[in-house]
Amino acid sequence: MASSYCTVCKKKESFFYRKYSGQQLCKKCFSESIENKVRTTITKYHMLKFNDKLAVAVSGGKDSLSLLHILVKLQKYRPKTTLTAVTIDEGIKGYRDEALKFSIKNCKKLEIPLHITSFKELFGLTLDELIVKVRANKQTELTSCAYCGVLRRRAMNIAAREVGATKIATAHTLDDETQTVIMNILRGDITRLSKEKPATNQVHPMLVRKIKPFCEIPENESALYAYVKKIPFQNTPCPYASEALRNDIRTMLNTIEEKHAGTKFTISRTIERLRPVIEQTATKENFKTCKKCGEPSTQDCCKTCEMLHQTR
Amino acid sequence: MASSYCTVCKKKESFFYRKYSGQQLCKKCFSESIENKVRTTITKYHMLKFNDKLAVAVSGGKDSLSLLHILVKLQKYRPKTTLTAVTIDEGIKGYRDEALKFSIKNCKKLEIPLHITSFKELFGLTLDELIVKVRANKQTELTSCAYCGVLRRRAMNIAAREVGATKIATAHTLDDETQTVIMNILRGDITRLSKEKPATNQVHPMLVRKIKPFCEIPENESALYAYVKKIPFQNTPCPYASEALRNDIRTMLNTIEEKHAGTKFTISRTIERLRPVIEQTATKENFKTCKKCGEPSTQDCCKTCEMLHQTR
Repeated sequence: MASSYCTVCKKKESFFYRKYSGQQLCKKCFSESIENKVRTTITKYHMLKFNDKLAVAVSGGKDSLSLLHILVKLQKYRPKTTLTAVTIDEGIKGYRDEALKFSIKNCKKLEIPLHITSFKELFGLTLDELIVKVRANKQTELTSCAYCGVLRRRAMNIAAREVGATKIATAHTLDDETQTVIMNILRGDITRLSKEKPATNQVHPMLVRKIKPFCEIPENESALYAYVKKIPFQNTPCPYASEALRNDIRTMLNTIEEKHAGTKFTISRTIERLRPVIEQTATKENFKTCKKCGEPSTQDCCKTCEMLHQTR
Repeated sequence: MASSYCTVCKKKESFFYRKYSGQQLCKKCFSESIENKVRTTITKYHMLKFNDKLAVAVSGGKDSLSLLHILVKLQKYRPKTTLTAVTIDEGIKGYRDEALKFSIKNCKKLEIPLHITSFKELFGLTLDELIVKVRANKQTELTSCAYCGVLRRRAMNIAAREVGATKIATAHTLDDETQTVIMNILRGDITRLSKEKPATNQVHPMLVRKIKPFCEIPENESALYAYVKKIPFQNTPCPYASEALRNDIRTMLNTIEEKHAGTKFTISRTIERLRPVIEQTATKENFKTCKKCGEPSTQDCCKTCEMLHQTR
């Protein structure tokens, strides 16, 4: 293909063709478009109050580090919003320990405080140890990701409270969000379909609200942003990664997006339009307090305590 | 695998393992389960009044001929319901002419009147002729299926009125229905998502209501029924078949169903639960009369006339 000029500035050479918008973009205009998109997403979904204390969930991967970089940039528009990076160390040898180095490096450079909370401190054992135990006890048909997900969400919520955060920002991308929509339909999980939205509701005083400023950023563009900005990040996949259903859905969505550019955005728009009425249909969750740990739970004993019990 | 006995009658040998229910089934119990399922589906969705005159859309393929056979069987429970088979001859050389023979053969055996309506009679040209013309005129980026779909729905509605039918039964299977659900989400088509249901609403006096008694029958079981009952049917695919998006979705759903038996039923249940609220969100369609042909249309000029105009 002959080189072409950036559709936006019309001066520099294009380095990226954004198929769904038909734009050719230079590096500068591409980066600005991502930053602007995140800014408008935050406004559109009323994600932040002017004085929120934001905990940014940082894993050390491309998405969360790109998000952290952009949120730091956007601070000029929101001088009263404070940022703290929060990393959960699940205890996955050869993986999380490596990722941690990237979190530390980036936070240092950006001058953002980093708070690290580990499964070991909170739950008394690492994910590696937990998986060995539940498998030895033959207690489960659940995947490692199922255990990790429940415990990580709990850990993140506790960590956010520890740093005094009023909200948690996660780097779920457009891809994550649309995969989740299809996955919840395939599982018939109307409750999840209604509650996994760009900015969650306040459902319990001890549950810190979550926002997803990347929910309209395609995953490949989040990666591209990290490359353009020369952000160092961890690139190896988790050794436990095993979400078979999500993988099948990811493959299908990418195949279709390739042929019909913009499909992921269409899914996102469709579900946002339907969400208010789906919320009416979903069973209301009644939060109480877990009898064992005192954290919010919809059951007498929370999922975290239930899972930890399987290791005894 | 060692041969095993039918889970239902416990007498005959199993010839089919129904993964989603865990049942082993003999031929007789399998066929009865399909017939009973169709009967309960008709009741569940209030598909028929006791004295409906039913037009059965018969293509000559496995699904529509299995449906016709079952509806004939079920007549003993609904003696006042009359059946007429209706076949649309789109004019696809080497395909529809072959299929027609199977429709005629089956209707003769079942002693059901068969009414054939052709694109040529109704619209003045066959699908083959239409496709050649629109492609020559370079009028379109639409697929052949898009043209055929619009014209076939119109033809079926006219044919149903010609035979005095109060309802049209089509053989859309669980597979067709779940593919359509995902397709409409990927396209953001909330209107279609709300209206493509097991029994359509009466939206205009000239639009005959449609029912889908096979909406909870998996496609492979509809095919199996035809084999067990030795129903002769056409097995070659349409030469125009080109619904790329549907094909990708079919592949994904089949892959996932293979790993998680029952997924298609879950999608169907989920959407039936959500449908009432989705209907609130969907834009209401206001039917008027097409200025050209006098048929019901949401636009001043209906889609059929618009497409036929492209051949001029």
